[in-house]
Amino acid sequence: METARIFTADVTAALHPACAIEFIHTYSLIHDDLPALDNDDLRRGKPTCHKKFGDATAILAGDALLTLAFGTVGTAPVDAARRVAMVTEIATAAGTVNGMVGGQVADLEAEGQRVAPEMLEYIHRSKTAALIRASVTTGALCAGASDQDVARLRRFGDSIGWAFQVTDDILDVEESSAALGKTAGKDVAQQKATYPAVYGLARSHEIANDLATRAIGELAPYVERAERLKSIAEYLVLRRA
Amino acid sequence: METARIFTADVTAALHPACAIEFIHTYSLIHDDLPALDNDDLRRGKPTCHKKFGDATAILAGDALLTLAFGTVGTAPVDAARRVAMVTEIATAAGTVNGMVGGQVADLEAEGQRVAPEMLEYIHRSKTAALIRASVTTGALCAGASDQDVARLRRFGDSIGWAFQVTDDILDVEESSAALGKTAGKDVAQQKATYPAVYGLARSHEIANDLATRAIGELAPYVERAERLKSIAEYLVLRRA
Repeated sequence: METARIFTADVTAALHPACAIEFIHTYSLIHDDLPALDNDDLRRGKPTCHKKFGDATAILAGDALLTLAFGTVGTAPVDAARRVAMVTEIATAAGTVNGMVGGQVADLEAEGQRVAPEMLEYIHRSKTAALIRASVTTGALCAGASDQDVARLRRFGDSIGWAFQVTDDILDVEESSAALGKTAGKDVAQQKATYPAVYGLARSHEIANDLATRAIGELAPYVERAERLKSIAEYLVLRRA
Repeated sequence: METARIFTADVTAALHPACAIEFIHTYSLIHDDLPALDNDDLRRGKPTCHKKFGDATAILAGDALLTLAFGTVGTAPVDAARRVAMVTEIATAAGTVNGMVGGQVADLEAEGQRVAPEMLEYIHRSKTAALIRASVTTGALCAGASDQDVARLRRFGDSIGWAFQVTDDILDVEESSAALGKTAGKDVAQQKATYPAVYGLARSHEIANDLATRAIGELAPYVERAERLKSIAEYLVLRRA
């Protein structure tokens, strides 16, 4: 929605990709929390989907949300070429090659392993940054942005998404479950590949800040129209939950 | 592919929806076989995905295939309007309202219950017929069929899909696991809502044959061009595996 606001005063068309991204995000959380994956009981301060409704319903709810996401962008009130472009953006972001599922598989395989910085970067950019990037680019596509602007905002989305996950790793170490609304300290317990584990906390904070600065640099051509996007980039690395 | 052949000699464009439908079908089998759902060890005569690779990989493999399906139709070599129409066909077929996931949820809820014929019809048309219907309509869309032809082939697909599931219920009672390549007799064991359970075997055979006849009736305008589609409809109710 915020990306769309840079290009047009009428952002209602961007409700379709906004809902689609939210469906994809929610499906990924429901499936990740399953006993076979992260086995988490707490999400957003409440019992996880499978704790409340059972594993079968949680699996099917995730499948339904993933499917509904594509049905929703497919009916956005913009021309067919832009709808198809959004389908491709979201399918790529949620998929296997440099996408969410690929990152998740690499993340699971890295548990208990010593990972190279390149693999750590791959995991974070795929499992987290890809979908945040798509939330930025689909909004821009819906608002009629040029190819050049979509490319610029893709770089912005990649950087804030990457910064978000580095910060998430930091908060898992520094904050409590009550503050986060999900189980804290799980990364260390599960020997996850994280920035604090590979670089230490101080350097991880620097990396997150550098990524946010790089992201904000991409917004320069939009001057004050991008104030809210800039605030989001700043918030992502300053947040405590 | 067979639907596309009615309208054009060059069916290569239909490879995209053909692959997408196969991805969706395979994802649905992988997730349905999970311990939390049908808990099946055998599929196509081999160990199921989770038996061989573990539950986490099976959940993620299903998610990846579902996502890839939409990425694949999104890049079919036809105009954007037809690509969007295929996305909508597949999202509807795989989704919750009269789609596969909705049928699957109703199927699980019906276990051990006495179901009304209307609910049995809803389950079969949603969990099975919807995707078979989409395999027919997306082929037609790719081949440039008119709205009227797509609507006619949608009715054909719905009828053969429904006939397929009634026949599946019958085979689960009449055949062995060795013949089916999957565990036979599971419907009775799990007290599933099936046609033999509600109507008996003899009436179920009649229903399947009536549906196949109705489907073949829809092909009349295409005369000999639809010979192979007609053979498929006939095969679906005569098959023994």
